[in-house]
This record gives sequence, C-alpha cells and structure tokens, in this order.
Amino acid sequence: MPMINPERLLGDLRKLRSFGATGPGVVRLALSPIDIDARRWLAGRMNDAGLDAQIDGVGNVFGRSRNPGPALLIGSHTDTQPTGGWLDGALGVIYGIEIARALAENNDTRHLALDVASWIDEEGTFSGFLGSRSFIGGEHDASVDEAIRCARNRDGQLLHDALQAAGLAGRPRVHLERARQIGYLEPHIEQGGRLEASGNAIGVVTTIVGMREVRVRFTGQRNHAGTTPMSIRRDAGAALVAFIARMDDAFRALADADTVWTVGRIDLDPGSLSVVPGQADLYLQFRDGNAARLRAMEAALAQLAHEFHARGLVGVALDTLDEAIEPVTMNPAMQEHIARAAQAVAPGQWVRMPSGAAHDAQLLAAHLPACMLFVPSIGGVSHDFIEDTADEHIVLGCQVAADAAASILLEAMESR
Amino acid sequence: MPMINPERLLGDLRKLRSFGATGPGVVRLALSPIDIDARRWLAGRMNDAGLDAQIDGVGNVFGRSRNPGPALLIGSHTDTQPTGGWLDGALGVIYGIEIARALAENNDTRHLALDVASWIDEEGTFSGFLGSRSFIGGEHDASVDEAIRCARNRDGQLLHDALQAAGLAGRPRVHLERARQIGYLEPHIEQGGRLEASGNAIGVVTTIVGMREVRVRFTGQRNHAGTTPMSIRRDAGAALVAFIARMDDAFRALADADTVWTVGRIDLDPGSLSVVPGQADLYLQFRDGNAARLRAMEAALAQLAHEFHARGLVGVALDTLDEAIEPVTMNPAMQEHIARAAQAVAPGQWVRMPSGAAHDAQLLAAHLPACMLFVPSIGGVSHDFIEDTADEHIVLGCQVAADAAASILLEAMESR
Repeated sequence: MPMINPERLLGDLRKLRSFGATGPGVVRLALSPIDIDARRWLAGRMNDAGLDAQIDGVGNVFGRSRNPGPALLIGSHTDTQPTGGWLDGALGVIYGIEIARALAENNDTRHLALDVASWIDEEGTFSGFLGSRSFIGGEHDASVDEAIRCARNRDGQLLHDALQAAGLAGRPRVHLERARQIGYLEPHIEQGGRLEASGNAIGVVTTIVGMREVRVRFTGQRNHAGTTPMSIRRDAGAALVAFIARMDDAFRALADADTVWTVGRIDLDPGSLSVVPGQADLYLQFRDGNAARLRAMEAALAQLAHEFHARGLVGVALDTLDEAIEPVTMNPAMQEHIARAAQAVAPGQWVRMPSGAAHDAQLLAAHLPACMLFVPSIGGVSHDFIEDTADEHIVLGCQVAADAAASILLEAMESR
Repeated sequence: MPMINPERLLGDLRKLRSFGATGPGVVRLALSPIDIDARRWLAGRMNDAGLDAQIDGVGNVFGRSRNPGPALLIGSHTDTQPTGGWLDGALGVIYGIEIARALAENNDTRHLALDVASWIDEEGTFSGFLGSRSFIGGEHDASVDEAIRCARNRDGQLLHDALQAAGLAGRPRVHLERARQIGYLEPHIEQGGRLEASGNAIGVVTTIVGMREVRVRFTGQRNHAGTTPMSIRRDAGAALVAFIARMDDAFRALADADTVWTVGRIDLDPGSLSVVPGQADLYLQFRDGNAARLRAMEAALAQLAHEFHARGLVGVALDTLDEAIEPVTMNPAMQEHIARAAQAVAPGQWVRMPSGAAHDAQLLAAHLPACMLFVPSIGGVSHDFIEDTADEHIVLGCQVAADAAASILLEAMESR
C-alpha cells in the first residue's frame, strides 16, 4: 500500500500557508491576486506529481491523472474566510496531491487514477460553492453563469472582472466525467471539538447535516417604558424571550445528541432603554443529519408561532431566510473503506460522526458516491487565525486517506 | 374662583403647535430657530397676560407676576422630542399663561401672584432638564456651565453657539426666589394609558418614580453553530434569555402594580446566524415610586448575576449605565388642593397616580413644594406625532389647575 511522505506533505501545506499568511492565519479570498498566485503554485505541484493540471474558467485547479479510469477524485478548497485558518480546505487539496505522489511511488498502486481538485470559492467571497457547482454543471450551469455576470465580492468587484484580471475569463470549465470518476473523497479538518474531546484521531463522516434559517418576527406595541404598566404592555421583546424558552423545550424533545440550533441574532426595535419594544426579530438556524427531524423541527416552530400569534397579544410571523439545505448521507461503501484504513493505521482512535459544517461534498454527493474524512481541530476552532491541527494528526489523516483511496480504486479495478 | 377661557386656551395651544408643525406632530428641538421663534411668541403672550416676561441666558422663558408674593410657579417645557407631539410640555406652559389671565380677570384672585416658566431643553437635545437646573442654581451651576461650554446637539452644534445665534449668550439666568415662590405646579399630559383605561379625566400625581439603568453582559465562547454540540456550548445569548426569565420572576415577586421594567435592547456578538454568540448584552431599565423597592430590585439583580456567574458556564457582569434617579414624593398639601379642585370640577373622575415619566418637577421638588396634575393621553401615546388629548380634557384640566392654583395661593396669603 502507498506510503505518504510526512515532510513533503507538511512542506507543501506550509508553502501554501505562505500565500496570504497573516500572523498565524491566512487571508486568501477567492480570486484575489494572492489566491491566483496560490492556484498557479498548486497547478505546478500537481504537474510535478504527474497530474495534468489546469486552472479552468471559474478558477478551479484540476489535476487529472494520466492513468485511465476508474478514477477517484480527491478535492476541497484553497480559498479562505476573511479571517481564515491555514488548514480549512487547504488540507484536503494537499492531501490529494500527496496521495497522487504516494500512489505513483508504489508498484502496487502506480496504475491507479487519482484526480485532484481545488474548488473555487467554497467560502462564498463571490458565490458559495461556485467551483463544485461549475464542475457538476447541468442543473447548476444557469446559477454559475448568473454568478459570473452579476456576483460581486465585498469590495464590489464583479466575479467576471476578477476572472478577467486573472486571465481566466472565457477558459473552458472542467466538468465531471461520469464514465471516469467513480467517487469523491474530501478530507477536511473537523471544525468542531468532538474528536479532540473523545481522544480520537480520525472521523469517518456519516452525513453532512441539513440546515434551516428562519427569522421570527414579533409585532407588539411600542410604548413609553416609564408610563406603560406591565399589565397593558404588548412587549415584542418579552414575547421573543418567552418564545425562545418554549422553542428550546420543543427542540430538546425532538433532538438527538447531534441536533444543533442557534439564536445568533436578536433585534429589538427601536432598541432604546426608555421604549417598550414594538417589534422584535429572532434569527434562528438549526441543523441536523436527519431530514425528517428537520421537518419536525420546522413543524414545531410553526406550531409555536401559531400558538403565540393566536393569543392575540403580539403578532408572530415566520420567514425562511435561505433555501432549505437537506442532509446528505455519505456513501456507505466508501465509509467502510475509510473505517478499515483508520482501524489499520490508528486502531480504536477513529469514530463515525456527522459533519455539522457544509462542504463541497454536499453538492457532489448527489452526482457520485462521496465521503469525507475528518482530522481533529485543536480547541474545536476554525474560521479563525488560530485554527490548527497537530502535525501528527495531519500526517496520520493523510495516510488513512491514502490507504482508503488505494483500497477504493483497487476494488473498482477488480469489479470492472 | 377664576374661570378659564376654553377658546383662548385652545387657541394659544394651537398657535404654539404651528411653530414646528409636522403633520399632526411637532418638531421643535431646544434652541432651534423655530424654538426661538416660539419662545419670542410665548414671551409676548406672557406680557399680554400681564406678566413681566424675559428669555434668560439659557433660553428659559420666564413670566413674573407684577403682584408681590407669595407666588405660585406654574411651568413645564415647550421644546419637543425629535418626533414630538403637540402637547408634551406645551400644555403646562400654556395652562400657566391662561391661569395667569383667569386669575387677573377675577376680583377675588387678581391680587394673587402666579409666575410662569417654559424650561429649556427638558428633552435633552443638548443637556436634559437644563432650564430647571439653571433655575435652581447652586449645586447645579457647575453642570449648567459645563453644558454651555461643551454640550452639543445631534448636529454637533455647541450649546454655546446655539445661545449665541439666538442672541441669548451672556444674558443673566433667572433663579428661584426662595422668599417669593412657595410652590411649583406642573400640569402635563399623562403619557400613559391609565386615565383613559379607567375613565378618569384628572390624575393627581403622588410620586415621580425613580429609575435605574443597567447593562448585563454575558461572556461565553464564540463557536461554529454547525459543529459545536449543544452539550459543550457556552452560549452567551442562551444565558441571557435564561437570565431574563429568572429576572422576570424575581421582579414580579417584588413588584406592585406600578413597578415597571423593560429590556429595551439586546446585542448578541457577533450577531451571525452561523456563530454561537460569545458575548451578549442586555440593556435593562426599571422604575418605581418606592426607593426601597428599587434597592430590592437592584439587590435581586445582583444576586441573580452572582448565581449565574457562579455556575461557571458564562461570565456575568453588571454595569450601571446612568446615575440612579431616586423617586420623589409630590407635596401632600398641594396634592390635596388639586384633589379638591378635581372633585369639584369633575366629581369621581380623578385618581391619584404616580408619574412613570421624568419631569422638571422631579428636580424642583428638592427645593420647593411641588406637585403635578395629569390629563389623559389618547391611546396612552406620547413622544410621537399622533400624541393627542381630547379638547374637553384639555379644558377641564386647565380649570382644575386654575382652581388649585387659586386655592394654594389664597391659603398662603392667609397664613402670612
């Protein structure tokens, strides 16, 4: 089986970190000049690894194995959040390159085809998951075309102009080859604290959770906070607080240990100490790996809103803030390959777990068998300059991914 | 006894409304050009009523009776909120002028001395209660001098420059004459809905409530809303919501029907749907007419904060936002005069009640016997363009105030 080279792996990760390094973190927004520099370097490293590399018409870096299929695709993203860490996304792409090298260096695996991708703009500087959507094509082409025409980053720059400035506008887009690519593997940092807390080194991802985002608006009566007795108030803020308590009870009754819900923002209007709030907005997000549970939570929320509204003291209205994201199950056979590899490399130090964060794999899973592998995040921190993972976990994760990739591909060769 | 003239009273109120009229409301910020115009007109109406009128060095309009003391002082303010109503403050000043005229027209009362004031900037465009503080002088002189030098309105204009532009800078300030003025009466709209709800026409104010303003800050751990299980979260926002529920219970156990408390503002940090809030601020105001109850509420709040903090999940810190305002009892003898006048004019249609809002009377009460009389606010609304009071209530309130003023002054003459 392939043996990855820890120094080469860590060296490439550190080199990639140097593009946009800011203190311990990285600022490498999609299609910024430093991101383009990093993509050119990545394409070079892919070529060095024996892949045919290109940067396509949306900025995806794609390294195609010269071996015929069946091919496994390993990918993630190398753009970052505005205050990003050095491993979020970068880890999976460099794993792919290192695994391509390791496969080529081993007589038993040098015939296997591993393609490697860095998807553009997973983080949504212009349009989230742009690269994986472009790669899938078909139903996503219209939204990708629309983004190229109209999407802007925070500085107001058009995506089209950013592609033009990078010399990428008009280049063809790389697309999924359904006859060749038989699976997608996305290694990633966990971005949570479960692996660390449980003393595990590897997470085999079972599902990527679905998500709902909702605004609950309470409409009462704005009033003078000194002259309006408690008994006649129609306090929108007080209704909001009472609602959250009831919602927590309802959600707890439906939840399992992986269900999460968050009130991230509360706005009281007019927001003055001397005024009883006439309007109050609650911004809620909830996530779960089980589609039926998400629907049950939506129903509980609607029921509670109806109940509060029906009391007549305040109006309650629900607004969906974004398209519902349904949970996605990771391919069970690929999970088994990763689990076996993890057990061989790190016996008893791996666990099956859901992904609470969204990933390109969520989109790709609708089109080819997909799975993810997690390594621990120190302190559970991500999207922050101090995001980090122990070197030994980085190395161990790559070896597990390499073994799983070899095993997936060898099995696919046999079954042809 | 004096008979007020309803048409003259309503005519003057409507004329004053025309200075700064904006739809049904009024925008007449302290020392704005339109406010200065209104002050000049007011001084003229005071002179017409037989008073010696002046506009003093801070903008107070003061009409001094030519009769020797003992004098009763009737006053309120004619500046408005940024989106003000036509009666808040204006009512009491025009009542004073009408009552001066009514006393002068009656043989039994024409010898009585009634002084009338419109205090500048009750609403705090530059510095709240500036006029009544200047009038009291002494302990307040330093803060008034400081305001003239340094206070600015929302447009950044210095108070000093506004006084200069109005031609008032350097004029002497009118001061309380302790040997002459034996009491202060401030008629005002209720600014709440109690009189209307109970079918009463007159409120005899017993106390002006005290007030506390506090920020409660919760410090937890900011985290990814997708990858952080509920069980390990230190959610500052969730702590805030739980705190409010417990605080409501504690305050309810201490409150009487007049106690009010309001959460006017909540800030969750960073305020993103995808982030478990790491910090949460609750802005609380509470008011009561009983100083001991205010202290008990403070103690309950501190106890609760200590209890939440001691659990160790989130930090809890209390910060006082403004100087504590202690409740002020209205002079009992003056209350009796108003109550008797109310019973004579509107039998069974008056009630004793606290003032939940702050007034110049709160400051003046420390220096001379003071009391207030309320007339109903339609729908309990004030500080809003649609603030209004029925004409019959405006007229009735003025007659009650006139009778009370005559009765207070006649008794004072007798006892000299």
